[in-house]
Amino acid sequence: VTSERPAPVTTAVVVAVGDELLSGAGVNRNAAWLGTRLGELGVEVVRGFVVGDDVDVITSTLREAARLADLVVVTGGLGPTADDRTRDALAALLGGALTHDEHVEEWIRDWYAERGREVTDRVLVQAQVPTGATALRNPVGTAPGLQAEVGNALVVCVPGVPAEMRGILEDHVLPEVARRSAGPVAIAVLRTTLTPESVVAAMLADIEAAATADGVRVAYLPSPAQVAVRFVAPPGVGGSSDAPTTAPAEQRLAPYVDAAVAVLGDLVAVHGPGTLADEVVLTARRAGATVAVAESLTGGSVLAALTEGAGASKAVLGGVVAYATDLKAALLDVDPDLLAREGAVHPEVAAQMATGVRARSGATYGAAVTGVAGPDPQDGRPPGVVHVAVAGPDGVIVHSPVLRGDRERIRVQAVVHTLELLRRALLGLAPPPA
Amino acid sequence: VTSERPAPVTTAVVVAVGDELLSGAGVNRNAAWLGTRLGELGVEVVRGFVVGDDVDVITSTLREAARLADLVVVTGGLGPTADDRTRDALAALLGGALTHDEHVEEWIRDWYAERGREVTDRVLVQAQVPTGATALRNPVGTAPGLQAEVGNALVVCVPGVPAEMRGILEDHVLPEVARRSAGPVAIAVLRTTLTPESVVAAMLADIEAAATADGVRVAYLPSPAQVAVRFVAPPGVGGSSDAPTTAPAEQRLAPYVDAAVAVLGDLVAVHGPGTLADEVVLTARRAGATVAVAESLTGGSVLAALTEGAGASKAVLGGVVAYATDLKAALLDVDPDLLAREGAVHPEVAAQMATGVRARSGATYGAAVTGVAGPDPQDGRPPGVVHVAVAGPDGVIVHSPVLRGDRERIRVQAVVHTLELLRRALLGLAPPPA
Repeated sequence: VTSERPAPVTTAVVVAVGDELLSGAGVNRNAAWLGTRLGELGVEVVRGFVVGDDVDVITSTLREAARLADLVVVTGGLGPTADDRTRDALAALLGGALTHDEHVEEWIRDWYAERGREVTDRVLVQAQVPTGATALRNPVGTAPGLQAEVGNALVVCVPGVPAEMRGILEDHVLPEVARRSAGPVAIAVLRTTLTPESVVAAMLADIEAAATADGVRVAYLPSPAQVAVRFVAPPGVGGSSDAPTTAPAEQRLAPYVDAAVAVLGDLVAVHGPGTLADEVVLTARRAGATVAVAESLTGGSVLAALTEGAGASKAVLGGVVAYATDLKAALLDVDPDLLAREGAVHPEVAAQMATGVRARSGATYGAAVTGVAGPDPQDGRPPGVVHVAVAGPDGVIVHSPVLRGDRERIRVQAVVHTLELLRRALLGLAPPPA
Repeated sequence: VTSERPAPVTTAVVVAVGDELLSGAGVNRNAAWLGTRLGELGVEVVRGFVVGDDVDVITSTLREAARLADLVVVTGGLGPTADDRTRDALAALLGGALTHDEHVEEWIRDWYAERGREVTDRVLVQAQVPTGATALRNPVGTAPGLQAEVGNALVVCVPGVPAEMRGILEDHVLPEVARRSAGPVAIAVLRTTLTPESVVAAMLADIEAAATADGVRVAYLPSPAQVAVRFVAPPGVGGSSDAPTTAPAEQRLAPYVDAAVAVLGDLVAVHGPGTLADEVVLTARRAGATVAVAESLTGGSVLAALTEGAGASKAVLGGVVAYATDLKAALLDVDPDLLAREGAVHPEVAAQMATGVRARSGATYGAAVTGVAGPDPQDGRPPGVVHVAVAGPDGVIVHSPVLRGDRERIRVQAVVHTLELLRRALLGLAPPPA
């Protein structure tokens, strides 16, 4: 059916294909990216399916998915090997035939030629396209995407490799989805630190109730030592149909977000989609400051988080991982008598590590963290005892939380405490309560 | 029906409940843990569902799941807040009623009393148990698990918090599942590095064909710069029924694994379930050696990986993150003239970083990595240019791969290259081809 006004897309189902996702050998990260990107366009993901490399199961799942939503996105099972069955399942759904597509063969030959490699017959299997489906060029690999109408749903199949999935969807599918959606939703995220979810939720109870009554959804998303509060306002299109804007939805969101910021005060570490580490880098850049970090129990995780983003080199100089006690003296000038007397897990050791990394690196601020990740005690201190310090132009502050959980959880929380103390120091705020 | 011989459990379906899993605000990591643990017990996960916080959808999904498999594990939706709907869905499936369970109330009161906190009415909602279901005590939180027979399936609902999910299943459910499964499967994993999946698969083609014909499944699981090859042999119970062993399945696996090891040679970096970083730590401990690392573009990720496991402090001393060029001279004694002349991305810079971190830390081996993660070029070098070096008792070796992909992918691959060069140096093996 050709129509001037294509069917609207407001709901989606995501189908992940691959034995490895069922057996636990892989984690389905694509679903989170799809939920986020589709949500931004005003399309709600209403169901997810995970199926193995079985053509009958994939076929029946696609049929059910096409009944449940306007858009079905299938990830995985499009490669050249024998266990890639999505192509056959889509063909089964469309009548059973596969046609050799010369354009796709040309894309594959180009891709190999650019890399000076030879095309094999096996790879050319990917040029078989189900009759009734359209091939979508893959900007970063050889397996093309496949797109077809099934019933009232648009079914799009993309490879499971994240970069290939994203590339095909961004190039070919999401622009079309955006045109057919009710318009973008508005999303605001406030990220709080070092405060239990129940406390944050209690502080926002009245605002949440008012927002919900107004159609603005509020969700609490806890992770170790952090709670993200997410506000979502429904689509409200402004601007022209060629250039819709999120302005009306954002206007609807603003009073609730502003009220939450007022109530939470400096518990809000990040106002926006970025991570706490991104915020520390931004805050340092705004202040014209540089930072360096000395780590013990976190073993480099604080610095790894700070350098994840592309802008890090403007503010982050680096630092020292003094995992062994001796290195705290050798690389950070911590007093060896103090280490001999108190061991490595002590507030004064954290303070001297911070001062030491600041002096040796020449950074404006030096942060440091020492403590016991476990499972065994260290120097007589049990797992969870942690000391964080920041040395800056105005002196040294120390923060000593006691953390719960296993080794991994203690390390993750210690990273958050270090980043948060550094953020507060950069802004001249008091340290958090221990 | 009471029976001396409970129904066997050989298949499972996993249902994840939570709006945040559909909207992209959360990643479903529980599914991977469940697939792995159930697989070890000989239970195959045949399907996964992800549903939002909607009681009708949860109910109909549980009904379908109970038809598809012997065991249904539901994660999430058991907490005390209004969007926790799994309890009501299970009740709907069992006839609709909820009964206040005094044991559960006692567990909750104990949990709060131990922490000196007061029990609220809201929290006691969790003592409502669907009539016909059994509550399972939560060893690390307040929301109990729920277990019931639905048709021929055993349905188990657990909280979505990973530690609570794991605790309830390990304490109450998996021992029962192990008794009712056909017996444990045997699993072997070989982890190769720096070799494309297609090359590894071609080398193992004959072995894979023979194994498959014998009922042993072979899977290739690629991640950046690594391919894990996994062999799974079906259950073959030995020993007594009280103490089954995996011996028969392991005997069946062994010839294929041995043949693969022989063909792959020193491409196999890890033989077992651990990570490459675990293997480096183990190799160093066996050699009685200590290691230190100097990092630039990876920003601390190599050291964070090495210190993830509990045994790290026996071999890993720490190191230096010299993200800014100046720190390579100040903290690692790299020649300032070399840095001025060649910039920070140069094989000789990597060599001097490795030598510097070894000398300053006193470690037996010093590893180093410098390069361009992108998105922008640095010192005239494009993203992907990387130099890795290891300095040890026998001198310095340098390895200079050119990596493809975005910033994150280049950083992850650079970590693998650094760990692999270090592993090879510890074993006296030649560096990999660039």
